[in-house]
Amino acid sequence: MKFGILNGPNLNRLGQREPAIYGSQTLADLEQSIIDKAKELGVTVECFQSNHEGDLIEKIHHWAECQFNGFVLNGAAFTHTSIALRDAIASSDLAFVEVHISNVYAREEFRHKSYTAPLAKGIIAGLGLDGYLHALEWLVRHPSSPDLI
Amino acid sequence: MKFGILNGPNLNRLGQREPAIYGSQTLADLEQSIIDKAKELGVTVECFQSNHEGDLIEKIHHWAECQFNGFVLNGAAFTHTSIALRDAIASSDLAFVEVHISNVYAREEFRHKSYTAPLAKGIIAGLGLDGYLHALEWLVRHPSSPDLI
Amino acid sequence: MKFGILNGPNLNRLGQREPAIYGSQTLADLEQSIIDKAKELGVTVECFQSNHEGDLIEKIHHWAECQFNGFVLNGAAFTHTSIALRDAIASSDLAFVEVHISNVYAREEFRHKSYTAPLAKGIIAGLGLDGYLHALEWLVRHPSSPDLI
Amino acid sequence: MKFGILNGPNLNRLGQREPAIYGSQTLADLEQSIIDKAKELGVTVECFQSNHEGDLIEKIHHWAECQFNGFVLNGAAFTHTSIALRDAIASSDLAFVEVHISNVYAREEFRHKSYTAPLAKGIIAGLGLDGYLHALEWLVRHPSSPDLI
Amino acid sequence: MKFGILNGPNLNRLGQREPAIYGSQTLADLEQSIIDKAKELGVTVECFQSNHEGDLIEKIHHWAECQFNGFVLNGAAFTHTSIALRDAIASSDLAFVEVHISNVYAREEFRHKSYTAPLAKGIIAGLGLDGYLHALEWLVRHPSSPDLI
Amino acid sequence: MKFGILNGPNLNRLGQREPAIYGSQTLADLEQSIIDKAKELGVTVECFQSNHEGDLIEKIHHWAECQFNGFVLNGAAFTHTSIALRDAIASSDLAFVEVHISNVYAREEFRHKSYTAPLAKGIIAGLGLDGYLHALEWLVRHPSSPDLI
Amino acid sequence: MKFGILNGPNLNRLGQREPAIYGSQTLADLEQSIIDKAKELGVTVECFQSNHEGDLIEKIHHWAECQFNGFVLNGAAFTHTSIALRDAIASSDLAFVEVHISNVYAREEFRHKSYTAPLAKGIIAGLGLDGYLHALEWLVRHPSSPDLI
Amino acid sequence: MKFGILNGPNLNRLGQREPAIYGSQTLADLEQSIIDKAKELGVTVECFQSNHEGDLIEKIHHWAECQFNGFVLNGAAFTHTSIALRDAIASSDLAFVEVHISNVYAREEFRHKSYTAPLAKGIIAGLGLDGYLHALEWLVRHPSSPDLI
Amino acid sequence: MKFGILNGPNLNRLGQREPAIYGSQTLADLEQSIIDKAKELGVTVECFQSNHEGDLIEKIHHWAECQFNGFVLNGAAFTHTSIALRDAIASSDLAFVEVHISNVYAREEFRHKSYTAPLAKGIIAGLGLDGYLHALEWLVRHPSSPDLI
Amino acid sequence: MKFGILNGPNLNRLGQREPAIYGSQTLADLEQSIIDKAKELGVTVECFQSNHEGDLIEKIHHWAECQFNGFVLNGAAFTHTSIALRDAIASSDLAFVEVHISNVYAREEFRHKSYTAPLAKGIIAGLGLDGYLHALEWLVRHPSSPDLI
Amino acid sequence: MKFGILNGPNLNRLGQREPAIYGSQTLADLEQSIIDKAKELGVTVECFQSNHEGDLIEKIHHWAECQFNGFVLNGAAFTHTSIALRDAIASSDLAFVEVHISNVYAREEFRHKSYTAPLAKGIIAGLGLDGYLHALEWLVRHPSSPDLI
Amino acid sequence: MKFGILNGPNLNRLGQREPAIYGSQTLADLEQSIIDKAKELGVTVECFQSNHEGDLIEKIHHWAECQFNGFVLNGAAFTHTSIALRDAIASSDLAFVEVHISNVYAREEFRHKSYTAPLAKGIIAGLGLDGYLHALEWLVRHPSSPDLI
Repeated sequence: MKFGILNGPNLNRLGQREPAIYGSQTLADLEQSIIDKAKELGVTVECFQSNHEGDLIEKIHHWAECQFNGFVLNGAAFTHTSIALRDAIASSDLAFVEVHISNVYAREEFRHKSYTAPLAKGIIAGLGLDGYLHALEWLVRHPSSPDLI
Repeated sequence: MKFGILNGPNLNRLGQREPAIYGSQTLADLEQSIIDKAKELGVTVECFQSNHEGDLIEKIHHWAECQFNGFVLNGAAFTHTSIALRDAIASSDLAFVEVHISNVYAREEFRHKSYTAPLAKGIIAGLGLDGYLHALEWLVRHPSSPDLI
Repeated sequence: MKFGILNGPNLNRLGQREPAIYGSQTLADLEQSIIDKAKELGVTVECFQSNHEGDLIEKIHHWAECQFNGFVLNGAAFTHTSIALRDAIASSDLAFVEVHISNVYAREEFRHKSYTAPLAKGIIAGLGLDGYLHALEWLVRHPSSPDLI
Repeated sequence: MKFGILNGPNLNRLGQREPAIYGSQTLADLEQSIIDKAKELGVTVECFQSNHEGDLIEKIHHWAECQFNGFVLNGAAFTHTSIALRDAIASSDLAFVEVHISNVYAREEFRHKSYTAPLAKGIIAGLGLDGYLHALEWLVRHPSSPDLI
Repeated sequence: MKFGILNGPNLNRLGQREPAIYGSQTLADLEQSIIDKAKELGVTVECFQSNHEGDLIEKIHHWAECQFNGFVLNGAAFTHTSIALRDAIASSDLAFVEVHISNVYAREEFRHKSYTAPLAKGIIAGLGLDGYLHALEWLVRHPSSPDLI
Repeated sequence: MKFGILNGPNLNRLGQREPAIYGSQTLADLEQSIIDKAKELGVTVECFQSNHEGDLIEKIHHWAECQFNGFVLNGAAFTHTSIALRDAIASSDLAFVEVHISNVYAREEFRHKSYTAPLAKGIIAGLGLDGYLHALEWLVRHPSSPDLI
Repeated sequence: MKFGILNGPNLNRLGQREPAIYGSQTLADLEQSIIDKAKELGVTVECFQSNHEGDLIEKIHHWAECQFNGFVLNGAAFTHTSIALRDAIASSDLAFVEVHISNVYAREEFRHKSYTAPLAKGIIAGLGLDGYLHALEWLVRHPSSPDLI
Repeated sequence: MKFGILNGPNLNRLGQREPAIYGSQTLADLEQSIIDKAKELGVTVECFQSNHEGDLIEKIHHWAECQFNGFVLNGAAFTHTSIALRDAIASSDLAFVEVHISNVYAREEFRHKSYTAPLAKGIIAGLGLDGYLHALEWLVRHPSSPDLI
Repeated sequence: MKFGILNGPNLNRLGQREPAIYGSQTLADLEQSIIDKAKELGVTVECFQSNHEGDLIEKIHHWAECQFNGFVLNGAAFTHTSIALRDAIASSDLAFVEVHISNVYAREEFRHKSYTAPLAKGIIAGLGLDGYLHALEWLVRHPSSPDLI
Repeated sequence: MKFGILNGPNLNRLGQREPAIYGSQTLADLEQSIIDKAKELGVTVECFQSNHEGDLIEKIHHWAECQFNGFVLNGAAFTHTSIALRDAIASSDLAFVEVHISNVYAREEFRHKSYTAPLAKGIIAGLGLDGYLHALEWLVRHPSSPDLI
Repeated sequence: MKFGILNGPNLNRLGQREPAIYGSQTLADLEQSIIDKAKELGVTVECFQSNHEGDLIEKIHHWAECQFNGFVLNGAAFTHTSIALRDAIASSDLAFVEVHISNVYAREEFRHKSYTAPLAKGIIAGLGLDGYLHALEWLVRHPSSPDLI
Repeated sequence: MKFGILNGPNLNRLGQREPAIYGSQTLADLEQSIIDKAKELGVTVECFQSNHEGDLIEKIHHWAECQFNGFVLNGAAFTHTSIALRDAIASSDLAFVEVHISNVYAREEFRHKSYTAPLAKGIIAGLGLDGYLHALEWLVRHPSSPDLI
């Protein structure tokens, strides 16, 4: 089983970016702990981060064509503004869990809106970097779960 | 370490209530699997469900007085309407994770608003009954994590 | 055939409560005339009034378990605010007609919104206590009518 | 006693028009069952349907001048858009009950607004063609009931 | 010089219609006093009332073709809802003054919006039937006044 | 009979101020033509203009104490923003007609709202300086007209 | 194959009506060029224009009964206000393409809303009178195309 | 003279609940100081607190039946959400003053809305526990004051 | 200790102004009873009323410079519209209680908004002229109370 | 004459992407049929698709510099969110027709808003891939048509 | 060349007023540094501050009559509420730059709206007292710059 | 000291792009005049323009890592839509001044909203290309100014 881990804009700055909100671990730290978790779960992961909406869209297209078993999405700021990202997901048949490191519901009003959440299997927010691990674990354990609405 | 599991209105109907949305396991099934998980994690849990807003409020007061280490909250319909529940939580010093069985962001507009989410450590939605287990596990593993905002 | 008659908060004050709006008959008078009507129609009714949202919710759960043939709902103030009541109904499979004694559309703006109406077979408002009788009669005469949307 | 039955636009298509919503009886069927009911109640009815707002307005003017005892109104689409219809009613002194065949509160948002409902004695929605019969019966039985607000 | 006097829906009920709001003079009284005023001013008027939006539209088309010097418009309820009436006026080159018998700004919120007012030379509201006379007088005295915006 | 003519902020700039909107006559010209009209009607007028909200308020207080028979109000920009002006009028018992030189409904959205209009006998907009004369004439001719609502 | 061409209010004024927006061809010119196009496509068309909402509604009813193969709709101002027109279409089973001569999205905000567009096969706006020809051609070439949503 | 003191949800946590907002006195302290004040004023008070909306409603019903002379209401969170509480008050004839310990207008937007305030004699907010004493004193001194609106 | 009493526009008309809302006592009566109360409390008060926003602003500046111990503010209509008044208060360090004679929450929607309330120690509304006395008493008794939020 | 064909994000997935909405033809199929049409019309086309907003912007800049005769735009998701795309068009002098494959007015609310439509010559939606051909044909046939507004 | 410097309400409190927001320099300091700058630029300035809207309006009238070459405007709180100030500017032909000492876009929502900004040549916010100097310098250097829109 | 100059989408079209709004100087002209100004101020600048959101984000990341002393930002269209750009800035510790060439407050409503302005030291709009020079000068002269809020 293969899963994608998709990180959106500014997440390459993890650790440097507002540590009070996002903690002090770097993106490399995060990706390593996901890879470790994947090994433990017996699955393969491909991690990808980009600040370019078009690159994120094309990565989703690619994973769809490679028949990935799903992905973990932290769309970051694009969560709130990108219909194109939503459409990329809708054009694929991939299950995904949406993750936010911080509790977006305790932050600015404009972070409460998500264009992608209605298409997600589930959403995890505020659990820090652990959110990715919980999301991956859940996806691995529910490979054929029917869509909960 | 002691944790509460608080389930709001109509969750006593789990398994009977709209199985397409909420699955076929009953509340008793859910509570048993949480108790099992708690044992595995080496902690104690108290499960409580009520259809009465006042009872939920008073259970939170009680847990605050008993110095619980936190709780998992599925406020169900009260999530969207009860400022009293929010105030009960604010009046305690308990960490909690908010859980929704279904992906509330893919349902009616009025289920997108949560009065309690801004006070939560984190939110998990759409992962079915597993959401409770992930939430408990996270709370146990972050006994003194500073508030992520 | 068994039907429920569910009256929400403050309806125990019928007759005393703002008679210009609600008339001078008491709740006991109302319930008696419904029982008389039920006899005439050859069906059984159970009347229940409560000022407690949780009690109303649990009565609906109970009627669902007892396989009632439907119920008449005057949710009173909870009509406009209670998603929990709506969810209780959604968790049952009971047909119901929503009744309001006064013409709520001629009163305050906040009385124009109903959380329960979209789930109802039909709505009757403004016909005074007669509304209950019309509703019961309709339910009895349409025991298996397909859901009109 | 004389009562009017006023049906608005597209109701001449009853039976042909979206039967899943409006049922399979025709306007002629409906009007016949109302006339039967009227006989049973010992009153006279005049049935009128038009797709022309102006004709509906003038019929109300006419009934006001003929001192009808009230009317049943299904304004159909004009319910939601016609202030002129509302003014026609306000310019008369006729009691009326507003009827909708389907449960308009379970349909599009724009069908939840009624310009005429605040002037009505009462509203009946979702009870199918029976709604007309209940409305007529109520009007006949409350010939001089004071305005319930 | 020729001027039109256009009265919209329900104004045929003047005198009978809500006299507390609209006074006790009839439409015939009103039209007579306008004709008297026109004579005094040395101009011709054509008075027209209809409850049919289409007829009002076509009368405006007609007056445009007959090169009237302008008209007085009391669109009544259509003021607030009819874009078709607005377009009819825009398709003509006729100057007009919009008149309302009552002070619409002291009535329901939905009467504060006018689709036709932005195209008018001016608006007179609340001055009762006198409003028509003032409007006509102004139009006669400003035969070639440039559009005030 | 005594009437007031109240002009609000920037109307001292009439003639200089945006002549495309307000014409080229000055405030002095306007006041002179009103005084002429008043003579013709056999009444006395007091003209007052101020750019100070407080002065306008106090003039209304003064006219109330002097038992004026009413006044013509062009509140200019204060029309749209001053609740204090509205309250000054409400605290008096004076009849008034609200006048706007330009057609405010054809201008910016914020000019469509009037705090004072709901208290007025009537409103005249867009008829240029003539609006004042029509307003005065109407007030003189309706010395004891009952409040039209 | 038979198709209808339905033109709403004020389109009888084409050529005279605001030529900067609608061009200088008349309705007769338009209808002739559509008839020519129909001949070229080997189909029959019936052209109908009315300023009366009720007549447009009844023409749609008629075409439904005559089993037309579809129609081209320029509802003009009724596009933005008429739920009755929408319901007339919903009550028929006719495919249609909505046409606007001008680019309504570059005009007033109130022209951006269409009650009929959600029921249409497609929408063409801004292409002038050619829009009708493109619409007809498309309808003829897609006689049984499944509904694109 | 008898007065009620009604405290809503979470006020049993006074002193423990967010002391920065609500101060450090407990509910018992508050009730004692009210009883002392009542003695000083020569009246009787009954203090009641509940976290259950239904209990608060029924207490108001009870006080109405016992013909209390009025009450002091701190509805806490129910202030902002409970139409049922408002209706309970409307169904009684009791004068009351609404009290909030903190300045609710300086807190979250959702605390600015009160369903009960429009029915109150007056409102006191932000004066801490003293607010209750001022409210009681005022009620005692204005036993039959006409309703100020 | 010195306190200010600041009364906004139209309050000079107390007693004459809408007595049904504001009672029949004059401003002089009010100020006298405040002075009496101040004596009783052993403090000095300066009373000031103006219809001029600028004068009210400058009086607050002055009291700030004279190191008053606080003030009672009835901003009247400026409460709802004046950011300048709010800024004047923010630029001072004076504690104040906001007073409204009538229950503003039972009046027009536009009276529910207060620009100054978020800066106040507390708000008293609807208690008539007594509101001022309660406010002064509270200020005197809480000379150094920390800001309750 | 040279024309551009600009396709926005996810349109490279045509055929694979939600075929119920977008049909089963691929982007290559679409582009080939456009090239064929162009040949038939005797013009040249350049087809360009990108998932990168910046690339679409720069292509428009390029076409403006190469003095293209216009272009067909399917901005896809960027239609609803990209002011940058709108500005790119505004900075060019190119005529264009906006095309949507599906009827966007029958889909989610957020697809009803277009930032680019107000600048377009015209809009075609819902006609499937044929929309492009109609658009191109129209552009070719109206090489110098004055801007219809 | 002569320029005005207009400071609105509470700016006389500069230095004393919320120094965290506005800095510690006084109005006199500010005006002196502007005068120094003016000398350096070889122009004359007149500085004026008032807490009275009417005085600010009349100063603008005065500068228009004296043919000033423009002015710097810090309308302070009136920026957000005063249409009268906007109209005063519109009635003059003076170029101006709007200045705010603090970054108003980082403060309360009600400070984001400016009635005067749409009429300004430009806006400078957040640059502290330097904003005035930059504004003056720009005005001096662009004496006849065409209006940038 | 090193400063960045960041220009967003379509600014490479300066001089060609809508000269009535943006003037006739090119981006190269602008950058040259900024470099000249920088020399005069004794600082270094790096100018960067891109139509790609991702490139702008990464340039900000880069400047943060290179410890620039601040930057001038003209985000162009991204100002109004890009939360990602805002987050990039928030993730850096760089001071910046936001510049708009035109007065965005005099243009379309959607240009009045800025996601980046709340994070800026200050904003300059409408001063044409000079805005950049004023911004740079201010940044150089306030190297360690405390954040004005």
